[in-house]
Amino acid sequence: MSTPVEFYFDFSSPYGYFAAMRIDELAQKYNRQVEWHSILLGVIFKTTETKPLMHIPLKGDYSRHDLLRTARFHHIGFTIPANFPVATHQAARAMLWIQNTQGKDKAKQFARKVYQAYFGQGIDISEVAPILKAAEEMGLDSLELANGMIRQEIKDQLKEEIDQALKLGIFGSPYIIVDGEPFWGFDRFDQIEALLKNGKI
Amino acid sequence: MSTPVEFYFDFSSPYGYFAAMRIDELAQKYNRQVEWHSILLGVIFKTTETKPLMHIPLKGDYSRHDLLRTARFHHIGFTIPANFPVATHQAARAMLWIQNTQGKDKAKQFARKVYQAYFGQGIDISEVAPILKAAEEMGLDSLELANGMIRQEIKDQLKEEIDQALKLGIFGSPYIIVDGEPFWGFDRFDQIEALLKNGKI
Repeated sequence: MSTPVEFYFDFSSPYGYFAAMRIDELAQKYNRQVEWHSILLGVIFKTTETKPLMHIPLKGDYSRHDLLRTARFHHIGFTIPANFPVATHQAARAMLWIQNTQGKDKAKQFARKVYQAYFGQGIDISEVAPILKAAEEMGLDSLELANGMIRQEIKDQLKEEIDQALKLGIFGSPYIIVDGEPFWGFDRFDQIEALLKNGKI
Repeated sequence: MSTPVEFYFDFSSPYGYFAAMRIDELAQKYNRQVEWHSILLGVIFKTTETKPLMHIPLKGDYSRHDLLRTARFHHIGFTIPANFPVATHQAARAMLWIQNTQGKDKAKQFARKVYQAYFGQGIDISEVAPILKAAEEMGLDSLELANGMIRQEIKDQLKEEIDQALKLGIFGSPYIIVDGEPFWGFDRFDQIEALLKNGKI
């Protein structure tokens, strides 16, 4: 049994969204599972002294242009949300609660829905309402989720996941690990595919 | 007559080196010329408040790994020089002098040789000796170059080129403009090819 592909992302990362729309399709082609890990880059950026791309002179304008072009190039529906970037701890906690109670596949399905609400439709996912709506559309009980996602053990679990990611050296989104080999960025899907195909790179 | 592809790079940029090894081949496939512009990122990084990748916690280690892997993936000979990054104003000035006196093709040939000395063989190109050696190997008079590259008009011309690049919004290396469309990074060669091929992207 081959090891799963480990996929780290922040719900506020547009290149993470592109990766989320493609990673399972790519892995399945080579009979691999994908483990999704929602992290909070804000915490990690303090360590790497990084600012969000949009806040950097010159790079911000280019990035907007590159995002729209890259979405077109890969045929992924995309909009730059009016509120961007946003806090994503609510979405990450909701995903963890769904993972704990409904399993990994449901959590992944939820994550895709939240990403599509944010980067597909521009809905502000720092609010709780669209998070609960995504869960409801999947047939989950939104009241249970609303109560569950604010519990201390979920907060602790997310903190633990982020600490773990930082220990692994993860500093961006998307960040993908295949058989111990790290890849940063949606740009590296060609190299990821080569490794999945050939067993080495 | 189609417009040339504009290629901006810093001699100390490894991804710029990868682009330099491939850009003319790609452009020729679609009957395009390439204009090479050597710039100094140090000046530009002050505006974008950017630090060289290698100096950033976590990212530095990943970058070393990614560079070696990307070179293998694209079959480009590559080593991480012991002195990295280095000051590249001497190489940039030498290139300008060769461009002024010997034409653009010779300047490009020289730039490739300097890049290969640095990232192919790890030779410190902040020194003048390897710069003169590259010129000599092309049959140029190294004494003339040594005298020419330190002249005030060359220094002014380089400063002017960098000011111009900054006005165009260029903030990294490689940075490539095709028919007004900007691309940052060797990662974007797939999108550059799509634009060259289809006339739009």
